[in-house]
Amino acid sequence: MIQYDMFPLIKDILAMEPPGNNLVIRGWVRTKRDMKNLVFVEVNDGSCFNSIQCTFDGIPVPPDLSTGSAVEISGSLVFSPAQGQAVEIAAASIKVIGDAPAEEKNGIPPYPLQKKRHSLEFLREMPQLRGRTNTLAAVMRVRSRLSYAVHRFFQERGYHYLHTPVITGNDAEGAGSMFRVTTLNPSLADPGKNDYSKDFFGRETFLTVSGQLEAEAYAAALSRVYTFGPTFRAENSNTARHLAEFWMIEPETAFFRLPENMALAEDFLKYCFKTVLDECAEDMAFFDERIEKGLIGVIKSVAESAFVHITYTDAIKELEKVQNTKTFEYKPSWGCDLQSEHERFLTEELFMGPVIVTDYPKEIKAFYMKQNDDGKTVRAMDVLVPRLGEIIGGSEREENLERLEKRMTESGMNTERYSWYLDLRRYGSFPHSGFGLGFERLTQYVTGMANIRDVIPYPRAAGQLY
Amino acid sequence: MIQYDMFPLIKDILAMEPPGNNLVIRGWVRTKRDMKNLVFVEVNDGSCFNSIQCTFDGIPVPPDLSTGSAVEISGSLVFSPAQGQAVEIAAASIKVIGDAPAEEKNGIPPYPLQKKRHSLEFLREMPQLRGRTNTLAAVMRVRSRLSYAVHRFFQERGYHYLHTPVITGNDAEGAGSMFRVTTLNPSLADPGKNDYSKDFFGRETFLTVSGQLEAEAYAAALSRVYTFGPTFRAENSNTARHLAEFWMIEPETAFFRLPENMALAEDFLKYCFKTVLDECAEDMAFFDERIEKGLIGVIKSVAESAFVHITYTDAIKELEKVQNTKTFEYKPSWGCDLQSEHERFLTEELFMGPVIVTDYPKEIKAFYMKQNDDGKTVRAMDVLVPRLGEIIGGSEREENLERLEKRMTESGMNTERYSWYLDLRRYGSFPHSGFGLGFERLTQYVTGMANIRDVIPYPRAAGQLY
Repeated sequence: MIQYDMFPLIKDILAMEPPGNNLVIRGWVRTKRDMKNLVFVEVNDGSCFNSIQCTFDGIPVPPDLSTGSAVEISGSLVFSPAQGQAVEIAAASIKVIGDAPAEEKNGIPPYPLQKKRHSLEFLREMPQLRGRTNTLAAVMRVRSRLSYAVHRFFQERGYHYLHTPVITGNDAEGAGSMFRVTTLNPSLADPGKNDYSKDFFGRETFLTVSGQLEAEAYAAALSRVYTFGPTFRAENSNTARHLAEFWMIEPETAFFRLPENMALAEDFLKYCFKTVLDECAEDMAFFDERIEKGLIGVIKSVAESAFVHITYTDAIKELEKVQNTKTFEYKPSWGCDLQSEHERFLTEELFMGPVIVTDYPKEIKAFYMKQNDDGKTVRAMDVLVPRLGEIIGGSEREENLERLEKRMTESGMNTERYSWYLDLRRYGSFPHSGFGLGFERLTQYVTGMANIRDVIPYPRAAGQLY
Repeated sequence: MIQYDMFPLIKDILAMEPPGNNLVIRGWVRTKRDMKNLVFVEVNDGSCFNSIQCTFDGIPVPPDLSTGSAVEISGSLVFSPAQGQAVEIAAASIKVIGDAPAEEKNGIPPYPLQKKRHSLEFLREMPQLRGRTNTLAAVMRVRSRLSYAVHRFFQERGYHYLHTPVITGNDAEGAGSMFRVTTLNPSLADPGKNDYSKDFFGRETFLTVSGQLEAEAYAAALSRVYTFGPTFRAENSNTARHLAEFWMIEPETAFFRLPENMALAEDFLKYCFKTVLDECAEDMAFFDERIEKGLIGVIKSVAESAFVHITYTDAIKELEKVQNTKTFEYKPSWGCDLQSEHERFLTEELFMGPVIVTDYPKEIKAFYMKQNDDGKTVRAMDVLVPRLGEIIGGSEREENLERLEKRMTESGMNTERYSWYLDLRRYGSFPHSGFGLGFERLTQYVTGMANIRDVIPYPRAAGQLY
């Protein structure tokens, strides 16, 4: 059997101690420089941020070797005599596997990713190629490592990964507009009277907006579960902050009340931040230098802060205290949702660090949140961080059947349709809590990328399907 | 801050060394037995297979305490004087948090999961409760651990986790029927002329059948990627082997040719099998005893076997040799796809172990597979295992632009629509290979569960949306 250990990544080769003989480098040419008898070819394979320099000393290199070509270079690993890299390849031969002509050839337009810098907007038009740039490759490596950190964090704490369904019969629970999933041919539909009993599932179905309710059921079985799956919003908001398809993480824990839920959220964020700082140091240095100055400092500081806890009512008081000196676009007042400007004031100016705001008015929060005895507030929590505002939203869940049913009816929900969910309060009801966060927001936060479409491989947004 | 370490799981408590004082057990009652002055309550929290026995010696227990009730029991961990468990809780007090009446109460029907055994069919009707049974809880724990093994395997080998899109503009690439995703109101659709330019994305969109093509693009950027996400088939096949929504794993590796791809698939399966045997020993013992006798032996044997390699052409010869002595429903002949009965003969009888069949006729395989120089076969591979047949399908990919375009045209595909995919062959084309496997099939394989609907939390199938 041929072992794939025979195919080292450039990351592995860069970590070797010279001399290393009979090595084969496989990757794509980033640059080629000619200098007297020497030719320098930088090769990148995306396994790490850095490319490897291959030096051809009197060895022939194809004259038209161009950026983007796939190559196989054999040679030896040596200490680099020049500045800029510790090691390099003393190349013995080069084979071009697939070229990437810099000029039109056989009717094929020139390779679009030439050496010059490209705007993120330009790159967004070509998702099949943009992963080959420094920025997008770094984002995708960090995204992958962050995903793995999510799994590690929960698995090491006794949580079970739960795949909640993508196709759902639930309605949006107030979370926004939904996409319909159907096998009916709309062009054959009888105007005015669609018969969904003839649809694939025998009823109306949509793409999920959250796996929380389904996760609650399994928290009643396995105690600790988390979801990490795609969720959808059919909202026509064409902003740098919204996607129609994005990934959410939703842990749900039996017997946790709000304080434990807050502690879990804090530990979770710190773990994620420490992981990318430790395991993606090169990529993070790039983001800090090229994407957002000071990024690493902020991430590190959040990872080392004790999160402040404040109730919504106290937060409003703080905001009211300063509203004469600060110019808020929206006047803070009890009963209104906190605006981004309010959240950022709390976390960036008042507490200068992460803050968890709890006990929001029930009217501005979801039906499933546990009602406080004051009759006005619910056991909600929003985690706010500097530079962003809300990064996590969560709550303790209402475990009392009557209170939950009443709240659902008040919210105009069909309790019959959610009878399965109410079963969790009919049989062995239990205190439980959970939270949710958008994985792309988290990835944006640690990479500093301004547009959410640049932190997911193939972004989906209104009118745009690249 | 209250630490959630104050909330030990039953799994953690069962692993403690007695004596352990001031412990609180939180979970759901499985059984209650009265015996002279003693009451025994078995509590389970789903953190592991076993329940913990709580013994009440002269301590009052609510007389109507019933199966399924959520309880909080405080007491001390002691060595168990009786057979059946090493340790138990000498209980000091019990609090019923949420009851689960065994009889109708306030109009609520009795808790359906009484102590007696329930059929898997019966449980399938109540996905919100079935996780509380031994079988389904064990499946979901193994499923979670298997997911984690998938991530660990790839992350430790330099692979980047790639979230390929769920909503796609691709067609099914011959993989089957697709679900439409739309925000058009079918009841307002103009019969005969739907205008998808008015749909959410400005064009027709569907639920993905595979992330492979999108993964190939990122293999050209990061060298090694894997997907692990939901995929969909709108097929009206109501069998124990098909789901409309299921999770797929698809690694894609730059510069690997078929031999490396085969080695990766073999290592991957062995890693998964070893992980569940090592890390889910209790659950696996349950499956071996109650679901399928001999299961552990088969899994262990596959994990320790060297996988046999055979070409399709040679496999057909072997099948033809025995067709007079074996009664196959379908006659094996060159050009026809291997049927399940043929696959099982090869893996269960001829080689008595895992087999990888390669180089299938191009007509029965997908357009993107690398064509051999014989003009007849492609660099495909199917991994067959005893008890199941095909568990993995994969191939080396066609890297030659002209050959790929020709094959797409022959297959009736719109090459214009796949221009983005052809770009991977226009610019820096490279040898690469990958494979795919259905995660539910893998979970079925290691758990022995006969029906695929019992290995996913909320199964979706034609006409059924529990």
